Amino acid sequence: MSDLKILGISGSPRKGRNTDYCVKEALKVVEEEGLEPQFLSLADKEIKPCTSCWVCQERKECNIRDDMDEIIPKLEESAGIIIASPVYMGLMSASLRAMMERALVTRMRDFSLHNKVGGAIAVGGGRNGGQEYTIHGIHNWFMQVDMIVVGDGKPGGHYGGAVWLAGKGAEHDEDGLRTVRSVARRVVGVAKLIWGNR
Amino acid sequence: MSDLKILGISGSPRKGRNTDYCVKEALKVVEEEGLEPQFLSLADKEIKPCTSCWVCQERKECNIRDDMDEIIPKLEESAGIIIASPVYMGLMSASLRAMMERALVTRMRDFSLHNKVGGAIAVGGGRNGGQEYTIHGIHNWFMQVDMIVVGDGKPGGHYGGAVWLAGKGAEHDEDGLRTVRSVARRVVGVAKLIWGNR
Amino acid sequence: MSDLKILGISGSPRKGRNTDYCVKEALKVVEEEGLEPQFLSLADKEIKPCTSCWVCQERKECNIRDDMDEIIPKLEESAGIIIASPVYMGLMSASLRAMMERALVTRMRDFSLHNKVGGAIAVGGGRNGGQEYTIHGIHNWFMQVDMIVVGDGKPGGHYGGAVWLAGKGAEHDEDGLRTVRSVARRVVGVAKLIWGNR
Amino acid sequence: MSDLKILGISGSPRKGRNTDYCVKEALKVVEEEGLEPQFLSLADKEIKPCTSCWVCQERKECNIRDDMDEIIPKLEESAGIIIASPVYMGLMSASLRAMMERALVTRMRDFSLHNKVGGAIAVGGGRNGGQEYTIHGIHNWFMQVDMIVVGDGKPGGHYGGAVWLAGKGAEHDEDGLRTVRSVARRVVGVAKLIWGNR
Repeated sequence: MSDLKILGISGSPRKGRNTDYCVKEALKVVEEEGLEPQFLSLADKEIKPCTSCWVCQERKECNIRDDMDEIIPKLEESAGIIIASPVYMGLMSASLRAMMERALVTRMRDFSLHNKVGGAIAVGGGRNGGQEYTIHGIHNWFMQVDMIVVGDGKPGGHYGGAVWLAGKGAEHDEDGLRTVRSVARRVVGVAKLIWGNR
Repeated sequence: MSDLKILGISGSPRKGRNTDYCVKEALKVVEEEGLEPQFLSLADKEIKPCTSCWVCQERKECNIRDDMDEIIPKLEESAGIIIASPVYMGLMSASLRAMMERALVTRMRDFSLHNKVGGAIAVGGGRNGGQEYTIHGIHNWFMQVDMIVVGDGKPGGHYGGAVWLAGKGAEHDEDGLRTVRSVARRVVGVAKLIWGNR
Repeated sequence: MSDLKILGISGSPRKGRNTDYCVKEALKVVEEEGLEPQFLSLADKEIKPCTSCWVCQERKECNIRDDMDEIIPKLEESAGIIIASPVYMGLMSASLRAMMERALVTRMRDFSLHNKVGGAIAVGGGRNGGQEYTIHGIHNWFMQVDMIVVGDGKPGGHYGGAVWLAGKGAEHDEDGLRTVRSVARRVVGVAKLIWGNR
Repeated sequence: MSDLKILGISGSPRKGRNTDYCVKEALKVVEEEGLEPQFLSLADKEIKPCTSCWVCQERKECNIRDDMDEIIPKLEESAGIIIASPVYMGLMSASLRAMMERALVTRMRDFSLHNKVGGAIAVGGGRNGGQEYTIHGIHNWFMQVDMIVVGDGKPGGHYGGAVWLAGKGAEHDEDGLRTVRSVARRVVGVAKLIWGNR
């Protein structure tokens, strides 16, 4: 089972900052639990927005050539996907949104992300400043691509990783990091049940 | 595997009407797929709202005696739970909300609904009158009790069953009923993967 | 202008506790700003759920006799309505939900709550445990009854009052109480603009 | 009062298509109601995502030079803003998201969009495919910039314009277009009350 991969995506435009940090904390748990962690930052990727040309419907490939060419296979080869976004004006980052739009092509490939397990993380400056809505936006996409959605499970039982920077930085928010680790554990646990016996 | 149970809950106060109809359509699919369907209407149940007394934290049982006494075991013995609500003023019915509140006790029993698979159905009079928000409210609860959430999957790839009565009744909304059947198929499929090999 | 009323509703089943406290904090601001505060607790009210009988469509009155008989006029005579709910399993309380359902009758009276100004408060035990979703559920209803929706405005610029009990109680959450006061100030400000010159 | 401007923003990357059409339908109502309509398409605009550099906090201007330089003044000079988005994978378009992020600077200018009136429109291919969530995402932003939020009011009483393309195009969805016109009427009505007497 050790070859199951869990992809952690940081939707922040800033490399090495809070959102990356949280994804890496999540991926530590993935490794401890015996699955293979993969880290993907969208910060240095070129991802053009979808133009709704619907070429993918016929060709099963996107008409646009950019870094989505390498991201789609990474999504497709994972058993679970953890997506983290900074909370920007109450929702996910525009670059993460662009990635989500462009993943339309996976629906055209007979829903190639079917049954992959998804968990969400939101990293915000304010305490209740859109973390929940950002998480819901990510869950929304998981369902669009026919994935399976989990929250952070025991012991908190909420929606995913919810981090509050409070002017200090993610590493100081122990309460939030606990939810980050919980959602990672939850994605791993369900991914093993779904994909482990294949 | 045939002993896996899928519980379909109708959160409507009206027996035998549109929401019940949709749950029964979903449960037909459950039966066709070889699992055991169970129907539960909240219409004739007495479910008092939670009073936030927190007695359950210590005793692992709710302090209130009413029909939740029989509903909790039904939730606990299912591998999957399909919850349908009429859309009332944009959200789920108050009686469904009461059931959800009272299920707090399952969190105190070490999250006894852990890993059960949940799908949602919303039945509304208007076309875009709160079906999505009602579905999200149900998903919200699934995560609170540490369940696994699925949408309606292929081919539509949205959030669950979304039915529009349009002044005529659920049985006339073939587009909506297709999403109802899809979410049932999706709950069954994932429930088999999670619970079928035990 | 001093005869403009702002109604503060506590959707908690527990009298004199955290949610009541937050509503009263909000109403202090209303008074300071020169409008007339009114406090309404749903704790001791009998509010039966809507049965979707649609009698109100014809008669412009609800078929059910209970405490909604006195609540509807209170809603109708206010220029602004501040609704607070405890976060129960991620959403608003069942009794608040019942009140919202039953307000269907106001839609039948040519939307008698048209242009009243609404603000929301959510009081939760966990930090990111459904406050935002609860606020959204309240906003959802404001739109159903054709009210005008405001967040907490300057300086935080989020969605309303978001209180975190953290095992201690609302009075200890100064950050949250600041959002409670902000949303009250915002409701008052817009209510004056909408209703003050009549 | 005729100099009050209502800005209609189309968040579609496709010029002259369904989302543009809906915005123009909304703006016809604006004109009929005696206010000044302004149309803005994001299709040919360059709007780079926010990099969270926080330079705006100090300088009250964004550090990035692109078409937001002309969009911010348009937002600031309007009494009301109607935002329409195509529903892409369940939420708003990435370019609209980028515009929203970059409007962070308005918060730094003492919330320069304070009290402007906002209404939302979502244009989707599927019937219940994310229209409500897209509308909520737009409302979320309105609150972040301290605007006032309205739904589509009478007679439907839902959340804004909700259009279903159904493989045919927006002009064929008369039910949806009615909500588009209603939300425009509602934005105009409240904008007059808020800004008309100044």
